[in-house]
Amino acid sequence: MFYKNYARFPKQSNSGFYIEMKNIFFTPGPTQLYPTVARHLQKAIKEDIASISHRGEKFHEIYDDTQNALRKLLKIPKDFQIFLLSSGTEAMERIIENTVGESSLHLVGGEFSKRFYETANFLHKKAEKVEVAPGLGFDFGQIDIGRQVELVCFTHNETSTGVALPMNEIYGIKKRFPDKLIALDTVSSSPYVDVDFGYVDLCFFSVQKGFGLPAGLGIVIVSPTAMKINESLERKNYMVGTYHSFGELLKYSEKFETPETPNVLAIYLLGKVAQDMLKIGIQKIRKNTKEKADLLYNFFEKQEGFRPFVKEKKYRSNTVIVVETDNDSSVFIEKLKKRGLVVGNGYKDFKNKQLRIANFPAHSTTDVKRLIREIKNI
Amino acid sequence: MFYKNYARFPKQSNSGFYIEMKNIFFTPGPTQLYPTVARHLQKAIKEDIASISHRGEKFHEIYDDTQNALRKLLKIPKDFQIFLLSSGTEAMERIIENTVGESSLHLVGGEFSKRFYETANFLHKKAEKVEVAPGLGFDFGQIDIGRQVELVCFTHNETSTGVALPMNEIYGIKKRFPDKLIALDTVSSSPYVDVDFGYVDLCFFSVQKGFGLPAGLGIVIVSPTAMKINESLERKNYMVGTYHSFGELLKYSEKFETPETPNVLAIYLLGKVAQDMLKIGIQKIRKNTKEKADLLYNFFEKQEGFRPFVKEKKYRSNTVIVVETDNDSSVFIEKLKKRGLVVGNGYKDFKNKQLRIANFPAHSTTDVKRLIREIKNI
Repeated sequence: MFYKNYARFPKQSNSGFYIEMKNIFFTPGPTQLYPTVARHLQKAIKEDIASISHRGEKFHEIYDDTQNALRKLLKIPKDFQIFLLSSGTEAMERIIENTVGESSLHLVGGEFSKRFYETANFLHKKAEKVEVAPGLGFDFGQIDIGRQVELVCFTHNETSTGVALPMNEIYGIKKRFPDKLIALDTVSSSPYVDVDFGYVDLCFFSVQKGFGLPAGLGIVIVSPTAMKINESLERKNYMVGTYHSFGELLKYSEKFETPETPNVLAIYLLGKVAQDMLKIGIQKIRKNTKEKADLLYNFFEKQEGFRPFVKEKKYRSNTVIVVETDNDSSVFIEKLKKRGLVVGNGYKDFKNKQLRIANFPAHSTTDVKRLIREIKNI
Repeated sequence: MFYKNYARFPKQSNSGFYIEMKNIFFTPGPTQLYPTVARHLQKAIKEDIASISHRGEKFHEIYDDTQNALRKLLKIPKDFQIFLLSSGTEAMERIIENTVGESSLHLVGGEFSKRFYETANFLHKKAEKVEVAPGLGFDFGQIDIGRQVELVCFTHNETSTGVALPMNEIYGIKKRFPDKLIALDTVSSSPYVDVDFGYVDLCFFSVQKGFGLPAGLGIVIVSPTAMKINESLERKNYMVGTYHSFGELLKYSEKFETPETPNVLAIYLLGKVAQDMLKIGIQKIRKNTKEKADLLYNFFEKQEGFRPFVKEKKYRSNTVIVVETDNDSSVFIEKLKKRGLVVGNGYKDFKNKQLRIANFPAHSTTDVKRLIREIKNI
């Protein structure tokens, strides 16, 4: 209902544009495009956005517009930097490079938190981890952090398992260890998750999930404290990277530019979609996401042959719903695909034992209800 | 004449698609889109390319198609790897990280060769350079390379000055110093430049120049020797990077994937444009590029108030034509822009003293003749 003013795609715009996607994608990223993307893409080509100089005034405006829209949408404080990278994976690399001299701590509970941990190892840091089995949360009260640890890395929403960490528990760690930097992966929960930047120093996401955009852009948000620590590491001659060191990123972002020729089209589209979301209102979008998640969890709690993978309700993600299946999930996925609905399979070991269903702003309540109906019918 | 079968843009396709760019961009990247890009982009959205999984079969096909088309177009030997990155600037970083333990040598003659050199410094390597003033070539016979140097870095086509290095001189260095790895920046000369991979170990380019695509993708081509040296550096515990170390890139490319979620749309478009170029024939495209360059140089040799910046003809680029102007070039650029023709200004110190004109496959002979006519008229 909420989306009733939005045609899924503009079947016929003023200039005769016609683009319709074949399927509805409930995959956890890349995923269904946000309903306005095709229209913005058309306008971008007509306005020569893919051809303009990344050192010129028109690009500066796009950069500024996108930054402003994100700042407003995600309540990013004015003194925090917003840097543009190429992926969430790159964000992990740049965060470790730029803010860790020797040692980081990682809360690992799935493939993506593990990747963050491995990134620190690749960079020859002393990486420690607190690890739980897939589907479980952490006993935050028991976590102790040694003096040597400079950065604590959380994966808010573990895309591989459907576990989301309660934000208050993360803030609690910052309160107990205020001298540690906190990094937060919100790749598959932004813009749904409401981050209080009073407790988070580095936050990152990519655009092909909650923002419903084509892949190829990562965003990292950096606190003034993290910037200062980066400067001090650089002074101490630590290797903080090349064109995407925070120093270089800052030098260019002050001119509304990036060090390299960036994915201009994606920066433009991100700004437009963030503006569209602002028009609807982020609280409304978040409320709707929660309602759709409830529909899905309630359904899978009751439906024979299925059950939510994450048992403890407080750890259940509202944006990536992971469901165990009694029978081979791949057969089920194929059947849904024939009906034009694409859902994800389980990650790695769980490949044929789970469904992973994305619940992003691009998915309307009508889409979710249709998915539930089709699953019932199969 | 050559492009007569190509409508600049498909004004009306079967499904009623209508996209027309406002201007013609002769800027040296981002630049004019290749004439078929809008059509391919439309098809991509209709075929859900921006939503498919980067771990699924459909993506594997796209990856393979793009790789095959590039291999054919650029005559890349079978045993060379083709890795997908996010920009030419990233390619510089990954090449140094992955193939230099201690020391590299750089031939510097402008802003982009300087960036390659600075990248090695950022990475704490002992970077040496042979430097000439902007607009000049190198005295290749005089170049001596010390035992400690592992990698020699050439910028084939210096986008900031319009100097192109003769390929035979580069091959000559490899013949004299066969144990050194050779890296070649062809960012603004590929696919025009015909690289003999018998003499080049690492070659890179980005897609927003000669391929006429939206920015956001970089390609690096890696010889078996460079891969072996990378492995030995890793064994010796050198830091060779994280998700974009050659080892990780290889592990994923063997599955037709990338370590991160990549710019899927750009990979798709690159494959399609490379296939379009193969249909025309790369020799025909190269011949046409040379003819258009001759038209431009001949015109500026004779036209009062203008002269080619690069004096020695053998160093003149055929893809980025840099022209000195007697009067403020920015006034001139504004006048051309009002006529729908966008040319680049000079780089940094030469900002208001030069025009930089791209001559890529996306620019037809008709476009170039129109540009010359309009310049005459002003």
